[in-house]
Amino acid sequence: MYIPTIDDMLTAHVRVKPYIHRTPVLTSAFLNELTGAKLFFKCENFQKAGAFKVRGASNAVFGLPDDMLEKGVATHSSGNHALSLSYAAGRRGIPCTVVMPRTAPQAKKDAVIGYGGKIIECEPSTSSREAVFADVIKETGAEFVHPYNDPRVIAGQGTCSHELIGQVDGLDAVIAPIGGGGMISGTCLTLSNLAPNIKIYAAEPEQADDAARSFKAGHIIADDAPVTVADGLKVPLKELTWHFVSNHVTDILTTSEDEIIEAMKLIWKRMKIVMEPSSAVPLAAILKNKETFAGKRVGVIITGGNVDLDTLPWMNHK
Amino acid sequence: MYIPTIDDMLTAHVRVKPYIHRTPVLTSAFLNELTGAKLFFKCENFQKAGAFKVRGASNAVFGLPDDMLEKGVATHSSGNHALSLSYAAGRRGIPCTVVMPRTAPQAKKDAVIGYGGKIIECEPSTSSREAVFADVIKETGAEFVHPYNDPRVIAGQGTCSHELIGQVDGLDAVIAPIGGGGMISGTCLTLSNLAPNIKIYAAEPEQADDAARSFKAGHIIADDAPVTVADGLKVPLKELTWHFVSNHVTDILTTSEDEIIEAMKLIWKRMKIVMEPSSAVPLAAILKNKETFAGKRVGVIITGGNVDLDTLPWMNHK
Repeated sequence: MYIPTIDDMLTAHVRVKPYIHRTPVLTSAFLNELTGAKLFFKCENFQKAGAFKVRGASNAVFGLPDDMLEKGVATHSSGNHALSLSYAAGRRGIPCTVVMPRTAPQAKKDAVIGYGGKIIECEPSTSSREAVFADVIKETGAEFVHPYNDPRVIAGQGTCSHELIGQVDGLDAVIAPIGGGGMISGTCLTLSNLAPNIKIYAAEPEQADDAARSFKAGHIIADDAPVTVADGLKVPLKELTWHFVSNHVTDILTTSEDEIIEAMKLIWKRMKIVMEPSSAVPLAAILKNKETFAGKRVGVIITGGNVDLDTLPWMNHK
Repeated sequence: MYIPTIDDMLTAHVRVKPYIHRTPVLTSAFLNELTGAKLFFKCENFQKAGAFKVRGASNAVFGLPDDMLEKGVATHSSGNHALSLSYAAGRRGIPCTVVMPRTAPQAKKDAVIGYGGKIIECEPSTSSREAVFADVIKETGAEFVHPYNDPRVIAGQGTCSHELIGQVDGLDAVIAPIGGGGMISGTCLTLSNLAPNIKIYAAEPEQADDAARSFKAGHIIADDAPVTVADGLKVPLKELTWHFVSNHVTDILTTSEDEIIEAMKLIWKRMKIVMEPSSAVPLAAILKNKETFAGKRVGVIITGGNVDLDTLPWMNHK
């Protein structure tokens, strides 16, 4: 198992810079007052392809050796990695095949196709996804770019907090949602080397709390097919992300579905930005654990904005 | 009739600066490709109180003479001016009464009350609003701050394009929605003096096209109670805004309800920002008149973001 280094992150940042946005950091006087903290929202919902995942995907695609270009890349993903890899492959002009749960939001499927990716559908479970994907790799011979358990991807995701510490001084903590752990691992890689005093928190839905249970147990626990509105956070930790989570994360905080939806609506209403349910889990966790964050300067990663505008969660809720 | 001057706008800018945001200008590679133009979106949806109207309201409130502070201010408004005046009055610590149609979005009513304003409801017609308002002024003795037909307000709205020309070089045109004409008049005031080569376009719903018909006829034509999804644009021109519109606007372009809703959804989906139906009318007009804007650098005023998140127009549409 190759563990990416801070040099890999720095190399990744130079490599991906032409293909990504340096996303803005927004603040909200209202949310600062509500939480008692100073919150700095790193808006990866404004990122190319609508999510932070384009950072890792671009690092893998643009680092690909020439002899692999014809066969291209392939992956499985609950959504944003799929369209980020399609975007990056499209920019480099190489083929991209993605295995996607048939239940993934239509907006994400449309976007993958729009960027030139090819979708193969699977059932919405980890086991089905892995079986279907094995067939795809056998047929295409493509380079597998795992959505998070891949050193190239983690090094790429680390560029997000690399930007953040250049945009905001004196952060006490950074909080990001955790699914498979790619964003959190990249954050750990960057901050543990460049800003080791900043505490790293992960936020997770109670209904997909495998990372929180793993963190307590001291080893990886995986759920098959959890159900949560935060559709980007259903996947389990793997050995590489577990390495970073178990070594560098201060705590993993969990929140209910109601809390996630309320935090999401609050951000839309007050900050006037479109972001995904997964991206609301950190604010939900801060609102639930105010004493942990009160008086602190906290970076909050808004991971993506690819939501299906026809079915917003508060509309079919309660 | 006192017509505000460029010095009034410059004075307003100094006066309101502590109470407003210098809002960002966003671009979208996708929308540039779709329209063939270079679009620069001035994001007043991120403005204090969620709309550009806080510029004019703050200019009126913070310019109010001391002997009027106890009686405070009052207005009638279809929404954003109401909550902007409440916000500004709250910042100065003076009373604010607003007459508002009972059909105004609940989100806007809640926000007015949240900022400390007092609401008196009227029927959703110009005639009812004016009758109810006359009673309010008689009772309170408050200073009337008209939502747009007021030199203080127009000078304040002019600060928006004053910022814009400092943020984007070489604009060929600016387009903004037109209701009563406050934003357009402020834009005319600023650009006709400071950047007279920039053409000014107004965009209006077909179903509330009184400004377009006035523009063609050469005199003010007013509708009573037009029906459109762009709820900020239902009010008619008045003599002061007519002065600016008739002297400085190049054209007024109208769009259908479907075109407005499609443009709104397109902006939410591609730019990941929350904005009002009224704010989508300019993009709808650009998409409908591509030849007019192709190859041009166009400033597009996103006027506000105070939308009711529980009833988005594309959900009960078609």
